[in-house]
Amino acid sequence: MQEKYPETFTNCVGRKPEISIVGGGLVGSLLALHLGQKGYQVNLYEYRDDIRTTELIGGRSINLALSARGRKALAKVGLEEAILEHGIPMRGRMLHDLNGRRRIVPYDKNNQQCIFSVGRKHLNEILLNASERYPNIHLNFNHKLIDMHVEDTQMTFKNPKTKEVIDVSTDLIIGCDGAFSAVRRHMITRPGFDFSQTYIEHGYLELCIPPTASGDFAMPHNYLHIWPRGKFMMIALPNQDRSWTVTLFMPFANFEMLKTSTDLLEFFTKYFPDSIELIGEEKLMKDFFRIKPQSLVMIKCRPYNISDKVLLMGDAAHAMVPFYGQGMNAGFEDCSIFSEILDRPSMEIADAITEFSAKRWEDAFAICDLAMYNYIEMRDLVNRSSFLWRKRLDDFLFWLMPNTWVPLYNTVSFSHMPYRKCIENREWQNRILSRILVILGTFGLGGLVAGIGIVLRS
Amino acid sequence: MQEKYPETFTNCVGRKPEISIVGGGLVGSLLALHLGQKGYQVNLYEYRDDIRTTELIGGRSINLALSARGRKALAKVGLEEAILEHGIPMRGRMLHDLNGRRRIVPYDKNNQQCIFSVGRKHLNEILLNASERYPNIHLNFNHKLIDMHVEDTQMTFKNPKTKEVIDVSTDLIIGCDGAFSAVRRHMITRPGFDFSQTYIEHGYLELCIPPTASGDFAMPHNYLHIWPRGKFMMIALPNQDRSWTVTLFMPFANFEMLKTSTDLLEFFTKYFPDSIELIGEEKLMKDFFRIKPQSLVMIKCRPYNISDKVLLMGDAAHAMVPFYGQGMNAGFEDCSIFSEILDRPSMEIADAITEFSAKRWEDAFAICDLAMYNYIEMRDLVNRSSFLWRKRLDDFLFWLMPNTWVPLYNTVSFSHMPYRKCIENREWQNRILSRILVILGTFGLGGLVAGIGIVLRS
Repeated sequence: MQEKYPETFTNCVGRKPEISIVGGGLVGSLLALHLGQKGYQVNLYEYRDDIRTTELIGGRSINLALSARGRKALAKVGLEEAILEHGIPMRGRMLHDLNGRRRIVPYDKNNQQCIFSVGRKHLNEILLNASERYPNIHLNFNHKLIDMHVEDTQMTFKNPKTKEVIDVSTDLIIGCDGAFSAVRRHMITRPGFDFSQTYIEHGYLELCIPPTASGDFAMPHNYLHIWPRGKFMMIALPNQDRSWTVTLFMPFANFEMLKTSTDLLEFFTKYFPDSIELIGEEKLMKDFFRIKPQSLVMIKCRPYNISDKVLLMGDAAHAMVPFYGQGMNAGFEDCSIFSEILDRPSMEIADAITEFSAKRWEDAFAICDLAMYNYIEMRDLVNRSSFLWRKRLDDFLFWLMPNTWVPLYNTVSFSHMPYRKCIENREWQNRILSRILVILGTFGLGGLVAGIGIVLRS
Repeated sequence: MQEKYPETFTNCVGRKPEISIVGGGLVGSLLALHLGQKGYQVNLYEYRDDIRTTELIGGRSINLALSARGRKALAKVGLEEAILEHGIPMRGRMLHDLNGRRRIVPYDKNNQQCIFSVGRKHLNEILLNASERYPNIHLNFNHKLIDMHVEDTQMTFKNPKTKEVIDVSTDLIIGCDGAFSAVRRHMITRPGFDFSQTYIEHGYLELCIPPTASGDFAMPHNYLHIWPRGKFMMIALPNQDRSWTVTLFMPFANFEMLKTSTDLLEFFTKYFPDSIELIGEEKLMKDFFRIKPQSLVMIKCRPYNISDKVLLMGDAAHAMVPFYGQGMNAGFEDCSIFSEILDRPSMEIADAITEFSAKRWEDAFAICDLAMYNYIEMRDLVNRSSFLWRKRLDDFLFWLMPNTWVPLYNTVSFSHMPYRKCIENREWQNRILSRILVILGTFGLGGLVAGIGIVLRS
């Protein structure tokens, strides 16, 4: 292997480079697999306990929507099938109106593609189990990064339980440590590092719809259920155990107005009447007031690297609001894109880092912006007839020209088109449609004038 | 005084609140004066040595442009005259072309207003001297903030010289500690705190034009001199000692191409030929390679406060690129706006903090954006005839309607109109002008058609 990593990788002349991944969540553990399979020495450092031996961690979403980009990255390490086996396909949105009536908006009328509801814990466990099979991947739990020196790629970890402090020397640090990345904290003070964190006024709170008495799903389970209410919304994703994880997204100001059980019941009766029975009134009261609503943040930064010493991936590089279901998929795509660059003949890891960092941020900015846009679409626009007409028109043109007219949601969720190209593609479609409208309008006006002429003459 | 600060100011029931200002630069020392004159107990903590007893600090601009907003804030503490006495009025831009020819673009044809070149050190000294006269203002130098607890407004400082560590308990912390604020670092991890830092691809490097042999200014001194060259530019501001501080703004990539004295001389001969003699060839070679070009950052954040415990002002709240000459002026305006809110009858300081924080960020975002826009205008647009035509048209309309048609630069530099209103005002002017163009175009076309008709008939 030695000849694969020569002098350009400055930290390790004449020996195998060792890559340290900070963060053993979804992206960190998948990246470990990608790099481990290529023969790199990989050390993964996770701040928390081993998720396989602990209860579910609070404050993070329980299930996630897996789509094409995530699947591809899993397929590259041979795990797509294993994950999909436990995933629940969702073929479209099922919208609940104020009277509890339901309407289906399919995701992909043409190819019948679907997104999959997968459990975060389950997914993480499969990735960690698979990693552990490689002798060159080493998992280190209870390692909290407390200090980091970029120039000589040194890190200091502390064991939150034993308080033991461990110094680690490595060749490359990859931060996959989430939206509040500790690795990134050491990059933010460097001149030239652009960074933004933007909170939205909405918070979220998770509830649960249990299985029915007969042990079945309480609602049709092959859909992502949405209760769109304009300024706020509730969604539900199915779980493997036939329960549903329900998430209420609402401005913090509105959450604060719900102080008592009476307030809450009144609110749910008015806006989500059909959900009360599904959740169970008593359970609703208990779960709602158990924890405070959590905030939602968008994070953009660039560049993702410091020379060939530090690199960011996943939420650490680009955290987004959850409304496009692309947070995990974008993070997984980071892994497969980086992996594909590394696979090219005689590619050095230093050059791969440079190339990944130079290009990826544009697509990450694009999906962050799209997710922010979908935040309005999901809670409000889906209720508007203009949106439904456009959706029908898009579906029709997609059916007519399946390779030419692919709607935005489909390029994002069911293709590997770079995210910024998805936006460009949509802008191109908008331009075409407005031109057609102008032409139709002109013809229509012409027809009207001719019609009036005929009427007047007759 | 006691009744002025009742329970709403939660940290000090039944005693005078003590305000701690972190940062003794221009904004910190001016704010100390504003608050000290109102009778507050003020403790100012400056990380560096007392500027009055030390040499000039490197890496920060030596002179600054003082305009209406800054002057107003100085006038409120009775220091406007003292500062202007040592300032050098600049009545317009003097543009230097590639052949060394000079052209004047006045700032304010109507009211003959000007901006003033003032020395940073001199200004800071006057503010510190004035502060020291108040027994309730305490200046603490060599106090570097190393820790801060928001909830109980505790701070820990370290003396960089003696290494002594000092714990301080206070009622309100105001961070005036600049673009890389240590106070702000403790706010960034709080949910709901929006933050962005954006670097531009240009760096800057300071040079100097000394006085002539006869001890005079080497160029007409009542102007801000600009060498606009499209992708880069050089500017010069006059100093009290009849020297000029010259600043070259250029992409880092271009700086890197100038490696040797030959490169540099060739570059200056091509682009700034008239400046070589002014600076002196030998001095140019020495000064240019003495320090690396510095980076330029824009910082936006909100909210500026954490309840009534922490508040940000000046560059700590809103750092901008220097191309509108408003960085210091905006920071000084923070002081006078906060001071005016506090002056209102029965205003509590907690409410003043809330009001300041709720409104000020919008204007700060606006001036940050304007400064970024001027970065293009100064180095490029000023050379274009379309820009000059618009400037002439604006000047003419301003002369015609001095109260109605005030050009953008004049509202920003010579009025106290909120920055966001300056932008709205400019957008209104743009709309009017484009409507007039349409009308003129229509008349013109009508005239042309009529003219052709007459010609054909005759």
